[in-house]
Amino acid sequence: MPRVATGESVVSRAVRVVEAFGIDDEALTVGDIARRTGLHVATASRLIEELVRVGWLERNGKDVRIGMRLWEIASRSSPTLGLREAAMPFMEDLHQVIGYDVQLAILEGTEVLFVERLSSPGEVVNYSRIAGRLPAHASSSGLVLLAHADPAGQELAMAAPMKAFTRNTIHTPAQLRTTLARIRREGYALCPGHIYADTTGIAAPVRGRDGTVVAALGLIMPNDDSAFAKVPAVQACARGISRVMASTSTRTS
Amino acid sequence: MPRVATGESVVSRAVRVVEAFGIDDEALTVGDIARRTGLHVATASRLIEELVRVGWLERNGKDVRIGMRLWEIASRSSPTLGLREAAMPFMEDLHQVIGYDVQLAILEGTEVLFVERLSSPGEVVNYSRIAGRLPAHASSSGLVLLAHADPAGQELAMAAPMKAFTRNTIHTPAQLRTTLARIRREGYALCPGHIYADTTGIAAPVRGRDGTVVAALGLIMPNDDSAFAKVPAVQACARGISRVMASTSTRTS
Repeated sequence: MPRVATGESVVSRAVRVVEAFGIDDEALTVGDIARRTGLHVATASRLIEELVRVGWLERNGKDVRIGMRLWEIASRSSPTLGLREAAMPFMEDLHQVIGYDVQLAILEGTEVLFVERLSSPGEVVNYSRIAGRLPAHASSSGLVLLAHADPAGQELAMAAPMKAFTRNTIHTPAQLRTTLARIRREGYALCPGHIYADTTGIAAPVRGRDGTVVAALGLIMPNDDSAFAKVPAVQACARGISRVMASTSTRTS
Repeated sequence: MPRVATGESVVSRAVRVVEAFGIDDEALTVGDIARRTGLHVATASRLIEELVRVGWLERNGKDVRIGMRLWEIASRSSPTLGLREAAMPFMEDLHQVIGYDVQLAILEGTEVLFVERLSSPGEVVNYSRIAGRLPAHASSSGLVLLAHADPAGQELAMAAPMKAFTRNTIHTPAQLRTTLARIRREGYALCPGHIYADTTGIAAPVRGRDGTVVAALGLIMPNDDSAFAKVPAVQACARGISRVMASTSTRTS
């Protein structure tokens, strides 16, 4: 690969240009991108021009945006497409029966990445976003995923700093260890006020074809006495998704 | 940008590697990718290695896959994220009230790109896929989008070859012109058996903040006498999405 004097490859710099876009960035200017990547404006500008040519970025005057072509290519071969397709009917059922926010998450290191969400805007405060992340220790979906992660993944989470969003957030290795054991035993996570005092997260594991946990199905609802009664519905839907995954797909097992 | 002897840039070749993945490709080998891109195996292999390093591809033994990181970056700043978030509650309503397949599409040249879908597996034959495409002239969503496209976009579609999927498919420029005018007048497209004899597509326009049509909401249902009666529900949901788009978002207007 041709490399510049710093030893960084052109591909790696092009990747940095695309990754300059954050979750709330509708559009960036060339100057924004240069600043965020640390590239010279001229270099950033040439890379942007190339990426616009292939449709991965779009440019309208000063505004540079992520291109539809990038979304298309990333989505159509996404490793979670099969998972999301299997999950959506059950997520809809749960959303219709209970309401609030229903979400599907996978584990990425010590964070959860939300790959699908059905929400009822305004009903509950929910920090999750599609393609957004949360620290795994703080989220009910994250705890379910950590509970079934391999030992190395669990140790990574134990060793990482754990931000306390509220006084209910799991934030010590000892608490985390106990919580993960309970989740494995009981088959769900129930997290009242762990991220925001007024909301409760409930999550249950989704299994792939080979029985390993590949995702977590979560419900974000008000932090009230009725939360515990909602656990079986979340578990039932998570099992439904697992059943479809086992029977129809090799893609996401 | 460093260029190889052919004059093609490294970025462009890296893009070709990622775009080698088709909609049904769970995984490709290095050999597959080299063959599809026309790159030497050694070149493809080096590019794959770089893309794996940044998380845009993932490699497990011989299998190379699209990486979660690429999906994440493409999704979180996707130009349609605001649109999809505004649309999903209405799509759910339509899916619950009527059933079958509900989908959201945008126009990309002479094709429709499906950006979201709620389906009832097995109920109707539906060629659309999330992140999949269909020729605009053949699909109800595509016709709605063409009907509101700028004159240049419409002329492009008139001039393109129009594949006849069935004998009902719109496949001449004259038919297309008449159909687009009727859709503008009536506010919806109703396409019985245009792609598959046994299914009917119904679609209505979704408008952005400035009133221009930015997407089409579609329903794919059996080709029977009840289809016409479903049109108002599709129109109502499309208007609901437009209302949310107008009031809450500048992102996708």
